[in-house]
Amino acid sequence: MDFNKFEDKFRMIHEKINDALIGEPKRLYDASRYLTKAGGKRIRPLLCLLACKAVGGKIKDALETAVAIELIHTFTLIHDDIMDKDELRRGVPSVHKTYGESTAILAGDLLFSKAFELCDSRAIKILAEASAEICEGQEMDMSFENRTYVTEREYLEMIRKKTAVLIKAATQAGALLGSDNKEEIDRLAEYGLNIGIAFQIHDDILGIFADEEKLGKPVGSDIVEGKKSLIAIKAIEKLEGKEKDRLLEILNKKGNARDEINLAVKLFRDSGAIRYCKAKAIQFVEMAKKAINELPESDAKKDLMRIADFVVERKI
Amino acid sequence: MDFNKFEDKFRMIHEKINDALIGEPKRLYDASRYLTKAGGKRIRPLLCLLACKAVGGKIKDALETAVAIELIHTFTLIHDDIMDKDELRRGVPSVHKTYGESTAILAGDLLFSKAFELCDSRAIKILAEASAEICEGQEMDMSFENRTYVTEREYLEMIRKKTAVLIKAATQAGALLGSDNKEEIDRLAEYGLNIGIAFQIHDDILGIFADEEKLGKPVGSDIVEGKKSLIAIKAIEKLEGKEKDRLLEILNKKGNARDEINLAVKLFRDSGAIRYCKAKAIQFVEMAKKAINELPESDAKKDLMRIADFVVERKI
Repeated sequence: MDFNKFEDKFRMIHEKINDALIGEPKRLYDASRYLTKAGGKRIRPLLCLLACKAVGGKIKDALETAVAIELIHTFTLIHDDIMDKDELRRGVPSVHKTYGESTAILAGDLLFSKAFELCDSRAIKILAEASAEICEGQEMDMSFENRTYVTEREYLEMIRKKTAVLIKAATQAGALLGSDNKEEIDRLAEYGLNIGIAFQIHDDILGIFADEEKLGKPVGSDIVEGKKSLIAIKAIEKLEGKEKDRLLEILNKKGNARDEINLAVKLFRDSGAIRYCKAKAIQFVEMAKKAINELPESDAKKDLMRIADFVVERKI
Repeated sequence: MDFNKFEDKFRMIHEKINDALIGEPKRLYDASRYLTKAGGKRIRPLLCLLACKAVGGKIKDALETAVAIELIHTFTLIHDDIMDKDELRRGVPSVHKTYGESTAILAGDLLFSKAFELCDSRAIKILAEASAEICEGQEMDMSFENRTYVTEREYLEMIRKKTAVLIKAATQAGALLGSDNKEEIDRLAEYGLNIGIAFQIHDDILGIFADEEKLGKPVGSDIVEGKKSLIAIKAIEKLEGKEKDRLLEILNKKGNARDEINLAVKLFRDSGAIRYCKAKAIQFVEMAKKAINELPESDAKKDLMRIADFVVERKI
């Protein structure tokens, strides 16, 4: 998918982010801006703007809320990297590696504050509720690391909260600011939730196979950290005997060596877990597309349809 | 001052806090509730309710926003304790000591999210701007620890942001939700800002002299950590020669022994710095009382006047 066509929207988003993150002490604001400069797909604010357009609204009505959502996303990345002890993010050292943990905690808190300064008052509850659920999802994710078995249902609930609710908030808030048609707002919320779940399942696949340089973090780091991805859950479910025991051993140990990671990846593949997860992600994409199928035709609707497909086709 | 008269208000606040902090995962919600159970003065939500009453408003109109302010306050305590490596808070092990750092970061983030779920939409910007300034103030405070000299002006700017703006937000938001008289809202904002500054100066004095058991944290810990309090700043300014050098040495070193802490306290006293700070705190209290002097007489106004005095008389 060619994102160049959204260049004007990305520029508006970028300018608003910069405007929001000017202040003193300089070190704190530098830390807050750091990841926003390091790239990132900006897919959440884009979805917010497109959802607004798709229901007949104007970009300017949703722009500040779109930026607020990107700030919340960035805040969660900074705090998650501290908790997960991830040293790389978007190909650069993570914020706590660069500015120290204390300033990183504060930089996240500042982004969170700025998000609520920017957000349209009509969308505050959507963003606040999503933020609370993100915290719940991250706590679930961390607790999974200490467990041998996690079910698919538990995993889906975790990524719904950790990843999908913010994407849902983006499309729901965008639609809310563009229209008062409750049915259409609900449809866009449903769309966002489903592509959000597909996005995370695909992200877990990328985390195992993608090119380290493109991904901006070490390949296989989820395995090293004992993250319970849907791939891992399914592979354990499908394997038997020695292979299952060996995989469990690798996944429940932290700090695996390269050959152990390679074996885990081989077992993921051989068990059919990868195939299963790819199909699952596509299933959620189809639900997302179905949710907005009845919307009036528009360029924005077409873009949302294409982005849904892109979510599971992207290489990064 | 007898706070028992506010018992019904404290009960309402307490119930609302409990209602707001029910959820799953249990461990995360336990961590979020932990400090709210450990006591705390609840002076911010009380001030919010009294400010609302003082301009003719109803308690129920400000109650949820008052609770939102207490949640923001609790969130900042949890994150500050992580940054400052404080192991005790309100006489109990701090949240990160009890639940680990990751869950403590998340518990703070969750409280922040819940605050914006609860807050009246008219008061969102006040709370969001205050939160951003609190982050700026904490970053200033941390940066002071690495500096030999800090001026009184810099210190006052730091505590304005770190402590006073949230107390200001409490009285300003309370007034806003009780009246549309802009002048009265401004007066209550001014009141909150000034008692907030007095509160922090007095807190620094308590941190040096108060009884360890009452304070709930080790006496002299500010000196151990090299915190630049107004007392320290003034003492350095007033002392000369060997005494000044010795004090600078103690204040710029972390992990002082008990006899060094005792010497610092003696120098604080002998230099007249304590006397100066007590007078300064009273000066801000007088400004606070003057700000609301012109408000119509009411029980709430009388309470606000008494609380202003209490701020610099309290032993805890």
